Amino acid sequence: MALLDEDRLFPATPRVRDIARALYRTVADLPIISPHGHTDPRWYAENQRFPDPAQLFVTPDHYIFRMLVSQGIRLEELGVPDANGVATETDGRAIWHRFASHYHLFRGTPTRLWLDHSFQTLFDIERRLSAETADFYYDRISDRLAQDAYRPRALFERFNIEAIATTESALDDLAHHRTIRDSGWGGRVITTYRPDAVIDPDFPGFAANLARLGEITGCDVASYAGYLDAHRARRAYFRDFGATATDHGHPTARTADLPRAEAEALFARVTDGSASADDREAFRAQMLTEMARLSVEDGMVMQIHAGSFRSHSDRVAAGFGRDKGFDIPQPTNYVTALKPLLDAVGLEPGLTIILFTLDETVYSRELAPLAGVYPCLKLGPPWWFFDAPEGMKRFREQVTETAGFYNTVGFNDDTRAFCSIPARHDVARRVDCAYLADLVVTGRLAEDEAFEVAHDLAYRLAKEAYRL
Amino acid sequence: MALLDEDRLFPATPRVRDIARALYRTVADLPIISPHGHTDPRWYAENQRFPDPAQLFVTPDHYIFRMLVSQGIRLEELGVPDANGVATETDGRAIWHRFASHYHLFRGTPTRLWLDHSFQTLFDIERRLSAETADFYYDRISDRLAQDAYRPRALFERFNIEAIATTESALDDLAHHRTIRDSGWGGRVITTYRPDAVIDPDFPGFAANLARLGEITGCDVASYAGYLDAHRARRAYFRDFGATATDHGHPTARTADLPRAEAEALFARVTDGSASADDREAFRAQMLTEMARLSVEDGMVMQIHAGSFRSHSDRVAAGFGRDKGFDIPQPTNYVTALKPLLDAVGLEPGLTIILFTLDETVYSRELAPLAGVYPCLKLGPPWWFFDAPEGMKRFREQVTETAGFYNTVGFNDDTRAFCSIPARHDVARRVDCAYLADLVVTGRLAEDEAFEVAHDLAYRLAKEAYRL
Amino acid sequence: MALLDEDRLFPATPRVRDIARALYRTVADLPIISPHGHTDPRWYAENQRFPDPAQLFVTPDHYIFRMLVSQGIRLEELGVPDANGVATETDGRAIWHRFASHYHLFRGTPTRLWLDHSFQTLFDIERRLSAETADFYYDRISDRLAQDAYRPRALFERFNIEAIATTESALDDLAHHRTIRDSGWGGRVITTYRPDAVIDPDFPGFAANLARLGEITGCDVASYAGYLDAHRARRAYFRDFGATATDHGHPTARTADLPRAEAEALFARVTDGSASADDREAFRAQMLTEMARLSVEDGMVMQIHAGSFRSHSDRVAAGFGRDKGFDIPQPTNYVTALKPLLDAVGLEPGLTIILFTLDETVYSRELAPLAGVYPCLKLGPPWWFFDAPEGMKRFREQVTETAGFYNTVGFNDDTRAFCSIPARHDVARRVDCAYLADLVVTGRLAEDEAFEVAHDLAYRLAKEAYRL
Repeated sequence: MALLDEDRLFPATPRVRDIARALYRTVADLPIISPHGHTDPRWYAENQRFPDPAQLFVTPDHYIFRMLVSQGIRLEELGVPDANGVATETDGRAIWHRFASHYHLFRGTPTRLWLDHSFQTLFDIERRLSAETADFYYDRISDRLAQDAYRPRALFERFNIEAIATTESALDDLAHHRTIRDSGWGGRVITTYRPDAVIDPDFPGFAANLARLGEITGCDVASYAGYLDAHRARRAYFRDFGATATDHGHPTARTADLPRAEAEALFARVTDGSASADDREAFRAQMLTEMARLSVEDGMVMQIHAGSFRSHSDRVAAGFGRDKGFDIPQPTNYVTALKPLLDAVGLEPGLTIILFTLDETVYSRELAPLAGVYPCLKLGPPWWFFDAPEGMKRFREQVTETAGFYNTVGFNDDTRAFCSIPARHDVARRVDCAYLADLVVTGRLAEDEAFEVAHDLAYRLAKEAYRL
Repeated sequence: MALLDEDRLFPATPRVRDIARALYRTVADLPIISPHGHTDPRWYAENQRFPDPAQLFVTPDHYIFRMLVSQGIRLEELGVPDANGVATETDGRAIWHRFASHYHLFRGTPTRLWLDHSFQTLFDIERRLSAETADFYYDRISDRLAQDAYRPRALFERFNIEAIATTESALDDLAHHRTIRDSGWGGRVITTYRPDAVIDPDFPGFAANLARLGEITGCDVASYAGYLDAHRARRAYFRDFGATATDHGHPTARTADLPRAEAEALFARVTDGSASADDREAFRAQMLTEMARLSVEDGMVMQIHAGSFRSHSDRVAAGFGRDKGFDIPQPTNYVTALKPLLDAVGLEPGLTIILFTLDETVYSRELAPLAGVYPCLKLGPPWWFFDAPEGMKRFREQVTETAGFYNTVGFNDDTRAFCSIPARHDVARRVDCAYLADLVVTGRLAEDEAFEVAHDLAYRLAKEAYRL
Repeated sequence: MALLDEDRLFPATPRVRDIARALYRTVADLPIISPHGHTDPRWYAENQRFPDPAQLFVTPDHYIFRMLVSQGIRLEELGVPDANGVATETDGRAIWHRFASHYHLFRGTPTRLWLDHSFQTLFDIERRLSAETADFYYDRISDRLAQDAYRPRALFERFNIEAIATTESALDDLAHHRTIRDSGWGGRVITTYRPDAVIDPDFPGFAANLARLGEITGCDVASYAGYLDAHRARRAYFRDFGATATDHGHPTARTADLPRAEAEALFARVTDGSASADDREAFRAQMLTEMARLSVEDGMVMQIHAGSFRSHSDRVAAGFGRDKGFDIPQPTNYVTALKPLLDAVGLEPGLTIILFTLDETVYSRELAPLAGVYPCLKLGPPWWFFDAPEGMKRFREQVTETAGFYNTVGFNDDTRAFCSIPARHDVARRVDCAYLADLVVTGRLAEDEAFEVAHDLAYRLAKEAYRL
């Protein structure tokens, strides 16, 4: 018995399913454009074998360990590193058994789809994961990971990735990207400029980060002009390593466009540590507009990922640090928040700003109406918790009638889980084909147009929007 | 190849589709009740030929030009009049070509459905609009517009419109309506009382508008009592031209019911120009309650259209003025907002208040629970961006279980685009029949009841709710 | 002609319907676990006959009378008791006729499904209710209610209820539960600890309630420590009558975890009547955390029902009192609101907090992400207005991809309407089976797993979550 249904995610009604399948056949094997994600560039640079199955699938994947935690398993039992050096489980097989014996928790989730896709297509497994099959899985995956065909670059090629972007801090020296570039390997791995650490005054180590930014760039980051120049310099450096985009992970989408003197005074308060919470939010807001201005200058695509309340549990944050599954979405407003930025540069030819949200209520109320009129705005795909079949369906249903398809940008996998990349793109392609098939059968789109749109959503829009 | 699928918008499952089709057949040809819209009464008064295809379809329709603008076309390239007299495109054929060569942008949007409906049913075109067919279209449509059968009154009759309401400012002399009335033509064209210009202190020219209101009515609009009397007089005047309803386009749904002395003091601040932003919002709020009281007096149906952030782009507003596609929805609260009005008159027999929203989150959370208990409240159809198949589906799915069908009021086309009227009503009728058919097949509604409800939604509820 | 379709609520596509039907067959006859509801324990204690059909179906059911009120019928015409002693209709047959002649208002609502289920399965009626059949119904139901087989305990057994929880005020002496326990009858009827009357300073009679709490428990409720001890004592008392859960019906989900001295000072202001509105909200917030701490101590499951604006119409509240259909949902935030409680006890092993909402926007944005990681949090079923087929579908679609099935707790009927209990559980079972069947056909869940999940959702999860 296969883990995967050949017709998974296609509509149940036969006529619609037939069209969805026909559409999917034309996009299933297209190369993967992965313009936004968080895989580790070290993998491609060093091309080392992946360690054991637990470290490949469980320990680094917050989708997986958050679900296990929700049912009473502790992070330390899953080998998640403890920030304070407290011992955590190190036995990969023990971690794998804990995961396997709770695999039923993932029923109905996209994680289940991604994992089964990896298990079947990469490891040729057709028996369901469970306590009973845990050792079989562990041994099979371990055996394969020892083979050269399962090293990162081989998988990259097997996955048919045409281009993948990683995300690095503004302070990163991009050594791994340099190694990749110098290696002669043909895989296209590019970086993305992520300046949160030197823009967000609430970021851990902000003052030190700022000092480091000055050192790296030789700019006078004590002045606002010098600080902006430092960004200019780093953006240019990132572009040397293929970057075509920047990424901004702010708690809100708030923007500001202060008169220069006010912006300088705000920056002074931020740098001397006297900034209030309002100041810090205002500075993040101001910097989104400044970054948009720099994008007008240098042509980099700007991505705004807003709305996550990071590290909701104080105890988990203190014990295990960031990115431990306790980031929770919040209501996010875009209409008033983006107005200052849009008044400043919203009609600039050539500027592209891609918006992401964790608050689905804004799809139809705010984001589609905004992207459906401002030439600079495009909508990113359903993000994070919404990178899932129903999440994708809601996105198309709520966005398309106002913004159409051509103000969206195809799919981003946004993942740290390397093996899930083909699975995620496959899910997105299937769900989009299902949506298009329904439009065809209900007379809302001609069949020949659906084939064109399917190709656009699977490949062309991402490539064009990110200038790849 | 036809542009329109005979079974468009019907569910894909054959048994459901059969029932939807059967329901639709009984309502497809019912007369159109159009109780809320923005067509130009001059058309019916003067019965002039429509100008060229671009001026009929593109230049006045914000649904169309906003989508083109979102992909980098400038308003001036589409012949949209510039507020400052800057030259814009005047060549209709050039505008039409720009539109035609971007027709793929409308894939999946209701605009596409409406346009194809007009092209096929009015202009007998069966080839898809594109750069290649642009001239064919332009010539065909131009030829037809030159025929008497395409003058406004002929189209009105062809569209089988039983009654249509236009919307006029409280200051309008209703000259066109007078002309229509005196012309002996049998078409029923009525007006609607829209007093925003003399109620909203933020409306351009408010002070002058108020002075003009005093002149027209002979009332002392320096006093609150006189101001309310002026409204009484204008409402009566509008009723003389068929008006059965008023319409209120406020940024929020906030209402207030201040003690008389406070209301008078607030009015004084509003009229002497000393009102703060809070005062101005409070005055709009107070006036919704006063308008509801006047509706109790004179029996006019009250419509509240809340939640649009008008003219979001300062630059577009300065360059092109209002209604240029840059109105963006905002989160809108109704529960606390409407309480003062509802405490004042919410249980009054005979009062009807129809609520519209651009924030779909309130359908199930606020509007259906409110309309499902307050006898004065009814829900208007999905408005503006939500006047679309998925928008209509969400409305029914989120409203019906709490408010049923009989606290809704059928369909409003709300349009300036004359040719889209039959297309829009056709979409609404099809989507409602699809929804009803699904209820039948899933055992939630008996088939004989579905036929009755289909007729109610297509015709009777609008006629009764608006007292037409 | 039957009132009920055998396949009601199953998907229309034949293959999906077949699987839904197969799943449903395995859960249709499972015993009912009803862990949260508002039936009257007097019924089971005294086992008296139910009075006339109007008093059984119409007068006590706010779902029914609110819909009739929305179409202009007055509460007094329906026999709803007037708080001020004004005469209301007492003729059951007259009330029944008013209801029957407006039965079309319920088309498309869950009330219609529940009523038809009762009419057909309990009273063997197969003709639709209408003005014409009103007397037939009234006579048939009256006849049956006179039979012993229609007394509460007989119906309880006929409904196959394994356990039912009622809800009592913290001040209730639980006399009816004592009677039930002492009667030797085998039905399992347990209570639930609902302390709003002694926790919410805005509750009518709060000061007197607090004094009464002191009398009952012998605790010094003038001190915060004594007040908390009084809760401890009452919770223990409730547990003696089977209670496994507490229930908290706050206007918001706000929680607080004040330093002890601040909490004591706040309590002092609350008890001496000097508390501001902010204080009163802060006290409710603080008490949710205290109640969670007591749950850690005593193992009671905590339920938070947040977000209802109670008694929205001042006039109805003054005339008829609480629970008259004028409770309206409000936007509700959980992410920042629950943080203090979760920081205090969110990772405690053994603690279970079940969250309910009237704001569906939080399903995917807040509740699923929270319950998908915090081990103490579980999601209650769609509540109140959302206890309906589309509401349930939205719940599963928006929750499952992030939180899975095992962070939800099966179905609660939450009803005062005894006859609706089997109907409501039947609707939930059917809708869940329909959802599971769709997952199976779209390759998102294996068929054998769907059978297991169907059983979990219909029976096991409720039993385990509520520790029954």
